[in-house]
Amino acid sequence: MNITGDMLIGASAVRGTEAKLQAIDPATGDVIGPDFHGGGAAEVERACALAEAAFDEYRAISPERRATFLEAIASGIEALGDTLIQRAQRESGLPVARLQGERGRTANQLRLFASVLRDGRWQSATLDSALPERTPPRPDLRMQKIPVGPVAVFGASNFPLAFSVAGGDTAAALAAGCPVIVKAHSAHLGTSELVGRVIQRAVADAGLPEGVFSLLVGAGVNIGTALVTHPVIQAVGFTGSRAGGLALVQAANNRPQPIPVYAEMSSINPMFLLPDAMSNRGPQIARDFVESLVLGVGQFCTNPGLAIAMEGPSLDAFREAAIAALTEKAAATMLTPGIHAAYEKGVAQLGDIEGLKQIGAGKAPAGPNQARPVLFETTAQRFAEDHRAQAEVFGPSSVLVVCQDQAEMVALATRLEGQLTATIQADAPDYESAGRLLTVLERKAGRVLFNGYPTGVEVSHAMVHGGPFPATSDTRATSVGATAIERFLRPVCYQNVPAALLPEALKDGNPLGLWRLQDGKLSHR
Amino acid sequence: MNITGDMLIGASAVRGTEAKLQAIDPATGDVIGPDFHGGGAAEVERACALAEAAFDEYRAISPERRATFLEAIASGIEALGDTLIQRAQRESGLPVARLQGERGRTANQLRLFASVLRDGRWQSATLDSALPERTPPRPDLRMQKIPVGPVAVFGASNFPLAFSVAGGDTAAALAAGCPVIVKAHSAHLGTSELVGRVIQRAVADAGLPEGVFSLLVGAGVNIGTALVTHPVIQAVGFTGSRAGGLALVQAANNRPQPIPVYAEMSSINPMFLLPDAMSNRGPQIARDFVESLVLGVGQFCTNPGLAIAMEGPSLDAFREAAIAALTEKAAATMLTPGIHAAYEKGVAQLGDIEGLKQIGAGKAPAGPNQARPVLFETTAQRFAEDHRAQAEVFGPSSVLVVCQDQAEMVALATRLEGQLTATIQADAPDYESAGRLLTVLERKAGRVLFNGYPTGVEVSHAMVHGGPFPATSDTRATSVGATAIERFLRPVCYQNVPAALLPEALKDGNPLGLWRLQDGKLSHR
Repeated sequence: MNITGDMLIGASAVRGTEAKLQAIDPATGDVIGPDFHGGGAAEVERACALAEAAFDEYRAISPERRATFLEAIASGIEALGDTLIQRAQRESGLPVARLQGERGRTANQLRLFASVLRDGRWQSATLDSALPERTPPRPDLRMQKIPVGPVAVFGASNFPLAFSVAGGDTAAALAAGCPVIVKAHSAHLGTSELVGRVIQRAVADAGLPEGVFSLLVGAGVNIGTALVTHPVIQAVGFTGSRAGGLALVQAANNRPQPIPVYAEMSSINPMFLLPDAMSNRGPQIARDFVESLVLGVGQFCTNPGLAIAMEGPSLDAFREAAIAALTEKAAATMLTPGIHAAYEKGVAQLGDIEGLKQIGAGKAPAGPNQARPVLFETTAQRFAEDHRAQAEVFGPSSVLVVCQDQAEMVALATRLEGQLTATIQADAPDYESAGRLLTVLERKAGRVLFNGYPTGVEVSHAMVHGGPFPATSDTRATSVGATAIERFLRPVCYQNVPAALLPEALKDGNPLGLWRLQDGKLSHR
Repeated sequence: MNITGDMLIGASAVRGTEAKLQAIDPATGDVIGPDFHGGGAAEVERACALAEAAFDEYRAISPERRATFLEAIASGIEALGDTLIQRAQRESGLPVARLQGERGRTANQLRLFASVLRDGRWQSATLDSALPERTPPRPDLRMQKIPVGPVAVFGASNFPLAFSVAGGDTAAALAAGCPVIVKAHSAHLGTSELVGRVIQRAVADAGLPEGVFSLLVGAGVNIGTALVTHPVIQAVGFTGSRAGGLALVQAANNRPQPIPVYAEMSSINPMFLLPDAMSNRGPQIARDFVESLVLGVGQFCTNPGLAIAMEGPSLDAFREAAIAALTEKAAATMLTPGIHAAYEKGVAQLGDIEGLKQIGAGKAPAGPNQARPVLFETTAQRFAEDHRAQAEVFGPSSVLVVCQDQAEMVALATRLEGQLTATIQADAPDYESAGRLLTVLERKAGRVLFNGYPTGVEVSHAMVHGGPFPATSDTRATSVGATAIERFLRPVCYQNVPAALLPEALKDGNPLGLWRLQDGKLSHR
């Protein structure tokens, strides 16, 4: 499959008429061809018109057909083989093994949503029988969830596959029955086109209306704003910076008809190190923490940017082991020159905070756009006094915060902003303290984990990759896992609808064999 | 129980220090004592501090205890007997029978949420087993929903009981485990205090922390804005005008930490009258439509403000019967002088629209604040040309829109704003057209009903009282029915949490006997 530098609008390949965009190899700074050209309002209009034209037909096809369509996309991505991995490697600087893993995850996500479609609980079919003898009579009431409408998805810089063109947002929206228009991230234009062409092909092969999928490219915020403010678009999925996410939320709120934005934005993923865990295995925790910190050059939303411990001898051992482990870590290439520059700036700003000092670092950069891992340390008091210490620095930077006692640790937890994750390292004698922290942290984070590290987000039924603001713009949602589909659905009640016109999921006799709530009782009969 | 004119903040009765507020009997214009005094920022602060202090304890009690608490509120409201009905009747001008029905509904709502709590599916307990042998190993992942935090509820003018102090929003939020702070609607201050004291008593009797419930009063928007922007508040429930709802949404969005607002705002509830239904039973539909139009002096969110029919002889018969039925209808007292003035203004504005003419009316007003029901008529073309014809006029006013053909009817449906309800009157030969309309209308409304009238909102599992903007500010939610609880919940994932620290709902062996999703399979073992 060739990369042409075109946008994909419905079944067409369209050459943009706006500014030229080029992919850059961050490891060398070299331009990678071909040239792309950004789209503008005209391309947004065309993609949206096609999406609207496709919506009713697409949402009406059977869940089985949608499942098969998602599986075809998964297989198509796998069939790209090394072409995809090599292109993604050059555009992102990420290691091949990491990208192979991410490809597997991307395919798994699509297949998980295929299984969600076949399971059918996503429709939330609910039936309340008519009670004609009651005063007043109760009508026949049936409820199902239907897709919200065409969805805009913004590709993420740090997951060129799993959170981009055919990533979790796209998979969830397509599963829900929503046409999707993706704005490719400019950091991996070729990767985006390759994956986009797989989806375009799968749409055609499945006999679906072409507007089910489009892929736009464009520099700057204009095309994104045009997309989010287009009246056809009914929801937005985004993974990226806090500033980027908030701009989309604001644009969506200012529409004549506001729409939901699911922006996954900013998290420093605090890790609380309790005393017994520290005295039993502090140095091991330190080494594992450093591994998690530098994984993927720290370019994960779940990167552990904050470690909170109590003063004492076990802290000294932890600190020493962490510094030693960090010293061994090489600098590594970040995703883009822009992300690298932001990392350098963020690290410098942390260094400027009074009472926050750098205590360890990895090896010095040996090439362009390489990030050197760093560890800072401060006290809980200073951390509380200077809000800048809580700012996310995207990359392998973390802050060790030292508390005088457990009360100070709980107080610090209480003042934290919303997070994607919070981690507790605790052994049995710590459980009482851990329980107190858990009560605080479940209000702060989408996922609370024990004796592990926050990087690594399982794609499963129970996963929550979400959390209170500013981790996300919508604390009720997750962007990873089976329930991510709920973001793109809304309930509709059908009252006394004639049998001939009832949706399949709500017909008498349950022809689809769904789990349904019938007069308050769950049943799949 | 005496009405003292105090606010209820936690366990205390507090006299406001801001402007005096008085209840008015709309039927006479007389002031009804006692005087109330509005609260300000200090009272908001106090109520919020108590709510925050109560939250962790309240959310930790068993669902059974919360269910019993809700049932105690229901019984307490019923035990107020005529005291409550008489006060509500004087403050609202609503008939006693209507208020008795509304009281029953209010108690039913509380009891429905008690049953929802006992059922336990609201917790969405989900477990994915650890897969230690997999590469990479999968951790143990468990998910449940927890309450979002303290909730602000704004009492509605038109349902002094069912959408006010102990109404659907309060019941759903208390069921979810959220402390609630209600801002009483100034139109029924005494009714609010009576019900508020029932909840205050139930909190004490159940041994719950006092901050679980507070009731504030205040004129103007200041106290409401202070409440919505207080950092403790994590969600808002509102039923009222579009302007009022949008102001709350804006205030919530402008917070440092934005929060969800569930505002149920504006709907004209279109009714589509298909040809065979019209020729078979046009005059009967006309009479039933007029009954629905004047029910509760048209002061329902689901009042049928729009009837759409096709030109022809059966339309003439419908029109004639509707005008005849309307002529017999008396003017009746509206809820407040302000609502009456807005109705008069809205009717006058409709009358000013070119090509929209009044074709029928009820009897002239015979007392203060009485609304005369009116029916206007226009063509689909004029309706499309002048957006003002779609504006909600709160009260017994409706517009009959005449289409030339079915295509014009579908086009009109396609251009409608979001609605709480849409109705189709159709007999068997109409079903093909009805199916086409249904595809349009399920995208426009939270509830689509056949051969009925939109007033009358069942409190059950399958009900959706919601819909796309501007019907509500959040199309994913319903404010009536069992799933209204979901508005006040958010998911949390627990990864490798030690057995001793797992939430009850997620423990091994399912000690609560909940429906849980275990490795993708539903089970209550």
